[in-house]
Amino acid sequence: MEKTITLSVVLTFFVVTNILNVSCFKYEPNWESLDSRPLPSWYDEAKIGIFITWGVFSVPSFGTEWFWWTWKEVKNPALVDFMKKNYRPDFTYPDFAPQFTAEFFNANEWAEILKSSGAKYVVLVSKHCEGFPLWPSNYSWNWNSMDVGPKRDIVGELAKAVRSKTDIHFGMYHSLLEWFNPLYIQDRENGFKTQDFVRTKTMPELYELVNRYEPDIIWSDGDWTTTDVYWNATNFLAWLYNESPVKDKVCVNDRWGSNIRCKHGGFLNCNDKYNPGVLNKKKWENCMEMDRYSWGYRRNARLADYFSMHELLSEVAETVSTGGNILINIGPTKDGMIIPIYQERLKQLGSWLGVNGEAIYGSKPWSHQNDTITKNIWYTSQIAGADISVYAILLFWPTDNKVILGAPVSSSSTIVSMLGYVGNFDWKPNPGGGIEVTIPPITMNKLPCNDVWVLKLENLLN
Amino acid sequence: MEKTITLSVVLTFFVVTNILNVSCFKYEPNWESLDSRPLPSWYDEAKIGIFITWGVFSVPSFGTEWFWWTWKEVKNPALVDFMKKNYRPDFTYPDFAPQFTAEFFNANEWAEILKSSGAKYVVLVSKHCEGFPLWPSNYSWNWNSMDVGPKRDIVGELAKAVRSKTDIHFGMYHSLLEWFNPLYIQDRENGFKTQDFVRTKTMPELYELVNRYEPDIIWSDGDWTTTDVYWNATNFLAWLYNESPVKDKVCVNDRWGSNIRCKHGGFLNCNDKYNPGVLNKKKWENCMEMDRYSWGYRRNARLADYFSMHELLSEVAETVSTGGNILINIGPTKDGMIIPIYQERLKQLGSWLGVNGEAIYGSKPWSHQNDTITKNIWYTSQIAGADISVYAILLFWPTDNKVILGAPVSSSSTIVSMLGYVGNFDWKPNPGGGIEVTIPPITMNKLPCNDVWVLKLENLLN
Amino acid sequence: MEKTITLSVVLTFFVVTNILNVSCFKYEPNWESLDSRPLPSWYDEAKIGIFITWGVFSVPSFGTEWFWWTWKEVKNPALVDFMKKNYRPDFTYPDFAPQFTAEFFNANEWAEILKSSGAKYVVLVSKHCEGFPLWPSNYSWNWNSMDVGPKRDIVGELAKAVRSKTDIHFGMYHSLLEWFNPLYIQDRENGFKTQDFVRTKTMPELYELVNRYEPDIIWSDGDWTTTDVYWNATNFLAWLYNESPVKDKVCVNDRWGSNIRCKHGGFLNCNDKYNPGVLNKKKWENCMEMDRYSWGYRRNARLADYFSMHELLSEVAETVSTGGNILINIGPTKDGMIIPIYQERLKQLGSWLGVNGEAIYGSKPWSHQNDTITKNIWYTSQIAGADISVYAILLFWPTDNKVILGAPVSSSSTIVSMLGYVGNFDWKPNPGGGIEVTIPPITMNKLPCNDVWVLKLENLLN
Amino acid sequence: MEKTITLSVVLTFFVVTNILNVSCFKYEPNWESLDSRPLPSWYDEAKIGIFITWGVFSVPSFGTEWFWWTWKEVKNPALVDFMKKNYRPDFTYPDFAPQFTAEFFNANEWAEILKSSGAKYVVLVSKHCEGFPLWPSNYSWNWNSMDVGPKRDIVGELAKAVRSKTDIHFGMYHSLLEWFNPLYIQDRENGFKTQDFVRTKTMPELYELVNRYEPDIIWSDGDWTTTDVYWNATNFLAWLYNESPVKDKVCVNDRWGSNIRCKHGGFLNCNDKYNPGVLNKKKWENCMEMDRYSWGYRRNARLADYFSMHELLSEVAETVSTGGNILINIGPTKDGMIIPIYQERLKQLGSWLGVNGEAIYGSKPWSHQNDTITKNIWYTSQIAGADISVYAILLFWPTDNKVILGAPVSSSSTIVSMLGYVGNFDWKPNPGGGIEVTIPPITMNKLPCNDVWVLKLENLLN
Repeated sequence: MEKTITLSVVLTFFVVTNILNVSCFKYEPNWESLDSRPLPSWYDEAKIGIFITWGVFSVPSFGTEWFWWTWKEVKNPALVDFMKKNYRPDFTYPDFAPQFTAEFFNANEWAEILKSSGAKYVVLVSKHCEGFPLWPSNYSWNWNSMDVGPKRDIVGELAKAVRSKTDIHFGMYHSLLEWFNPLYIQDRENGFKTQDFVRTKTMPELYELVNRYEPDIIWSDGDWTTTDVYWNATNFLAWLYNESPVKDKVCVNDRWGSNIRCKHGGFLNCNDKYNPGVLNKKKWENCMEMDRYSWGYRRNARLADYFSMHELLSEVAETVSTGGNILINIGPTKDGMIIPIYQERLKQLGSWLGVNGEAIYGSKPWSHQNDTITKNIWYTSQIAGADISVYAILLFWPTDNKVILGAPVSSSSTIVSMLGYVGNFDWKPNPGGGIEVTIPPITMNKLPCNDVWVLKLENLLN
Repeated sequence: MEKTITLSVVLTFFVVTNILNVSCFKYEPNWESLDSRPLPSWYDEAKIGIFITWGVFSVPSFGTEWFWWTWKEVKNPALVDFMKKNYRPDFTYPDFAPQFTAEFFNANEWAEILKSSGAKYVVLVSKHCEGFPLWPSNYSWNWNSMDVGPKRDIVGELAKAVRSKTDIHFGMYHSLLEWFNPLYIQDRENGFKTQDFVRTKTMPELYELVNRYEPDIIWSDGDWTTTDVYWNATNFLAWLYNESPVKDKVCVNDRWGSNIRCKHGGFLNCNDKYNPGVLNKKKWENCMEMDRYSWGYRRNARLADYFSMHELLSEVAETVSTGGNILINIGPTKDGMIIPIYQERLKQLGSWLGVNGEAIYGSKPWSHQNDTITKNIWYTSQIAGADISVYAILLFWPTDNKVILGAPVSSSSTIVSMLGYVGNFDWKPNPGGGIEVTIPPITMNKLPCNDVWVLKLENLLN
Repeated sequence: MEKTITLSVVLTFFVVTNILNVSCFKYEPNWESLDSRPLPSWYDEAKIGIFITWGVFSVPSFGTEWFWWTWKEVKNPALVDFMKKNYRPDFTYPDFAPQFTAEFFNANEWAEILKSSGAKYVVLVSKHCEGFPLWPSNYSWNWNSMDVGPKRDIVGELAKAVRSKTDIHFGMYHSLLEWFNPLYIQDRENGFKTQDFVRTKTMPELYELVNRYEPDIIWSDGDWTTTDVYWNATNFLAWLYNESPVKDKVCVNDRWGSNIRCKHGGFLNCNDKYNPGVLNKKKWENCMEMDRYSWGYRRNARLADYFSMHELLSEVAETVSTGGNILINIGPTKDGMIIPIYQERLKQLGSWLGVNGEAIYGSKPWSHQNDTITKNIWYTSQIAGADISVYAILLFWPTDNKVILGAPVSSSSTIVSMLGYVGNFDWKPNPGGGIEVTIPPITMNKLPCNDVWVLKLENLLN
Repeated sequence: MEKTITLSVVLTFFVVTNILNVSCFKYEPNWESLDSRPLPSWYDEAKIGIFITWGVFSVPSFGTEWFWWTWKEVKNPALVDFMKKNYRPDFTYPDFAPQFTAEFFNANEWAEILKSSGAKYVVLVSKHCEGFPLWPSNYSWNWNSMDVGPKRDIVGELAKAVRSKTDIHFGMYHSLLEWFNPLYIQDRENGFKTQDFVRTKTMPELYELVNRYEPDIIWSDGDWTTTDVYWNATNFLAWLYNESPVKDKVCVNDRWGSNIRCKHGGFLNCNDKYNPGVLNKKKWENCMEMDRYSWGYRRNARLADYFSMHELLSEVAETVSTGGNILINIGPTKDGMIIPIYQERLKQLGSWLGVNGEAIYGSKPWSHQNDTITKNIWYTSQIAGADISVYAILLFWPTDNKVILGAPVSSSSTIVSMLGYVGNFDWKPNPGGGIEVTIPPITMNKLPCNDVWVLKLENLLN
């Protein structure tokens, strides 16, 4: 099958789809129609994804992945000073690109690390707002990972490795806007009434990306400066859902225009680190950075800047309990390594999921998200026919080994156990409602995990 | 006046001009009409131009300005070996760009050097086949002289300096093709039936260049791989002649398609170093390199590689005599200097022209181009009303101070003199036709120049 | 006080001390006399030190800190290949030096990290076998951290920070040999009968180091190729012990010649990772890398390459139990960071020592080092007057919470407790000797630590 | 023969020669004795030498070869500004060294260029005041042309090429001081009462240089800060004259101490560009730069900065006439090229000497140096037995072809001719003394040269 598509075709299509209301299409290029498409089920079941933020910003590896913007537009003193101290005066952001060496980038090793985390999907930044594609784009000559820097097709290598080494779904982040692309700037200065940038750059690249790499997710971003009309969003999505090689499996998010995010599209990302804390009817995702100050790798990050395992597991519990997926971000180094602290966190997450995955993967929000009496307990559930198992995720170890769960309505056949531990626990109805569970003395070496434990509740009345 | 033009407008224009035959245009987008435009007179009068070849190739500064192609496509062993010895294995051509520092580039100094040469126009390489624009092009993001390397608007700075410091005409070389532009390659692979590259890259850049810098010359190149139809040449030229801000003064050459060069357009360049040796009716130009092996600067060039002053003056004499202009090439260094040997040649040329310019500037070919009897003599003429002065340019000093000129038909009032020397020379009719001129003993310190002397003949019968 | 010393004085001293047997000196320049000096007591009490291996090798940060030797002398294929792939052919090891940027090196932050580890001394590599001093040495012009690379006095900055921010002892590693120093090579080729290198390079530098920075430890290395005679070791040590500004506090190790190590000097290092497993009468030290494959930082190290906390604590227990100090190595990055995985290990070590330091700092080996019945238990003791407390360090959690300690001889007043936990434990005499201790059920949140627990035994009969 | 010498031997020698007054030596280490050595005759006969100034300063190639000093000590605003604009803030002079690539350095080509100039000796800067030896010195580890930058033995390669390809004498410039060598600075701060620098650096290097490369000239420099006593000058010269492998042929200059220059030693250099204008009894040398502002290559030098041929030939004439040799400096580029303008000047000098060498090589000053009546005429002479030929070097072409020479006393058999031109010239006694010579009309193509002509006078009475 021919995967390449000429710009001419794209442009023609662009024009045509603006004019015609083609009746044979299943989905029409409007949000009512597009929103009617069911989200492919694999996405909700996956729950845990890993976000990989990599790009030219990984070279200065200072501040954040918004380095270029923060330095040149915001003129943040820390970055301005960093550049003054360490580079010659006329050093520009594009000058960083040749130092994006990626000499240790080994897609198979990355795939193994991803696998060890227990994640079910990965979202790779294919092109950040800096506009540097991590694949040999036809529309970004001499400003992509094949022409300068890595001299490699990062997207292609990782897609292949993930698909051949794991059963992790492979998705891609893609920024619609490019901060400093002169065509974008010109369109913006024209009040977004011209679309030169969309027509000749960001759309052709997106089509190329989909046709060449067949992603499971298009994680759109960089939409916020203007509406979906400028971005050509509905036309693209109609094509994606109706005609593209990934039409049956692909999931998209909601960042398709300043007027669209948190309203339309596939799953909702709303803002970064979106975590509403309460159940959200429409599928959503909490994308969060393991380094709390940056998505891109920071060479000067300190231990305290990284989420601890406890913080990370708390975030997982809260997110899944309230109907979200969690997309946990890591930032590789410019030489292509996922540093040990990230490897450790991911491996520990994988270990925890190895014990407690039953409460996460494929789970559904329960009637309650957090407990009515005891704080720091989050619920999930699994439904198998008429049977519902409820999981109470404890972010703490109960004082004196006793914990009151206010939300469950017990029956006489209610069974309480701990994931990863053999044997049932004593419980009794709690006077104020719910149950009181007593955890037996567990020898240190029989504890299923060191932090965040899951109680499984079977045969409840609710 | 608004100089910028959006790509949308260009594209619309492109489409429209393909469809309409707009009657209000003076020139129509076909060669018959375009060829009917008279070449602005300043060009023929100028005679002497300087070509400046500068670009990313000035960084390796080895081989020629075709470095990229010769290295990667031809795989020339000398270049392959040079790269192996001096660079890390994955070093690419775009990696050279940050080293194109231009720290000593001073447009005013260049203007002074150009002025010292006696040249009347300059042609700057605005974008070579490597595709690197020496101006901040909107259509070549992060691959232009503002975003990487010089971090300056080379075209703009030189245009301003030349115009404010001299009365030299300012022209620009522009390559239609870009060897490794993926859009160009794709079009080529499509048999040039798609025009994505032309539409989104080379045409927008050319319009931008004309509108922003208002060149006196568009010296087109990179046309040879396909026809004018692909390049959109006639539409561009119709716009240039009818609507552009330079419609009255601009001159173009003939390199607008493999089927066009040496046939249509403005003045003829045909091939590089074109120098037919005989009178050519249509105005033509001999573009030649002072370094006989490269247009771009070569760090390892040896003295013998440069044209000597004698060779250069011989080339000037032959070219002007046969109706051509001469465009003499120099290649600046990557740091922005015109090296002393070039400065010296240009200054000596200027000195020679200071004495002998009467025979060159504004001259017309004479009835004879070279002498019928004595070799290495070239003729030009000046017409002032009914009076014609004829100039015999001697590439040698006559043995025994006597020289026979076979072409002139003398009258009794014929006067012979030497440009730069006071006093008339004795002559007598030559038995076989023409005249024999005797140069008197001239003291060394009264010689007008050291090499290539011009005899002025007045009151001839022919 | 004047800290600098001219080379002349050094040389004179060198000559003089070779000739004279100066009677007023407390220690004479021979091993019998030098070995008679008692090791300053602070050293044995400290137990835990941190080794910091930093240098030009931190730039390639690939292979080990022996990069230069392994690449050029051993011609290890991995390194040869690494250089071929990533550098131009004539790239030399000294070419790495300018990239040793250290822009994030903050001595105060390092001091804080060291402090967090609970270590009582630090040993900084002041000059590795590569010969690159991390201070502005007068004897290594343009090959030191002030002239190229960091442009800073690393030794001075860290010494100051450690001394002002912590009560950690500050020591220095110093390599006598320099693999590729031509003077050293010449001496070696002369069968070490000439001492040009020692006289003009390594000795002057060592004197300069001591006089200028007053280290608490001289951790000598690079001695193995020849004897102490060549190295001028006894003369240096006699000066160090008798005259130097650090004569009262300084400790040295044993690497002063191929015939000396593991026999003479201060504490014994013998070989790297020396850990005899049994009690050693003479004070020794186990220097070990947290990255098991390299002392210098490796950019491509994987999580599994680092010691786990369990492995590290096991090493601590075994080493201290058998009379050693442990010197735990970390390798900073070329930009001056101690990466998060190291920060985490150090912080966790500090937490563990915060609970269990009583069993470590100032402890003495007990009559038994490991238990006679149960494996993976190591003993230490504290002596306060007539009272001896014995510490059994358990590298595992006892199955069923019961553990048999074969070595202790109990009395009726014997008390067993766990460091960090309030309350005494039940115990009973073990039929085969020793005691059986029963650990009570301890709620997870009252456990003093997650791994490696210490039982404190009081009022034993032995 | 063994060419290497250990530092021990040097040091021993140093000590010994300070104590002993060894009677078997022909020359003693004092100036009276050393000055008594006759200068080897080849030197005076050679007349024309080429100075080659190359080093790390050729990398910035801006300002002069005193770049380091001028930037860091003088803090010259032009250099400070240049560094600020083009380099990161902590860039140091040693950081330039890796960029001293010398990839085009071809010693055989240099030898050919030297040969083309007609020079009879060459003086290569083996180590400038920056202290960077252009050979693999044992005493300057990692700060020499083999360890960083060129990675080649520049001195060795050029010595071999010059000796095998030409009969040009090979000499070396060597700076005693090194501006920023910490040992030198320390000695200076000690009032030059310590000699650590001399003992361990500059003397060992000088011995190494002589023993390894056997130069024909030691062109000493960097002596001016203190006396010959500190520099160990007389001891070195006594060894050089008595024992060294070049004792019979070697010539030295006079820069051996602030109290010595222009007084003692071999030929006198006194100050740079020393050109007294009158006869100097002791042999001297005029060392001058072809670029009038710098000895090292300047990338931004303009044509006018270079001596014109007329200026250069005038300097040659005046220097040789008054008893000097001329040492004409060129500065190669950092990549190892002698740029075309230098090649051209040297080649033109060679052409001129090809015609007029008879007046230069092996010549002796005449009774008069310049003419008594007419300005800009310089005399030399050749003595063959009783015959003396006198050469009047005319820096101008005589007006009306007549020139009065006031100094010669003519006889009836006096013959006047022009070097390179066949035939004798008319002359007649001048009323006020001397002769008036009439140059016949010479056809342009028979002129022996374009500038600076030599009249040969035979059979004079004086």
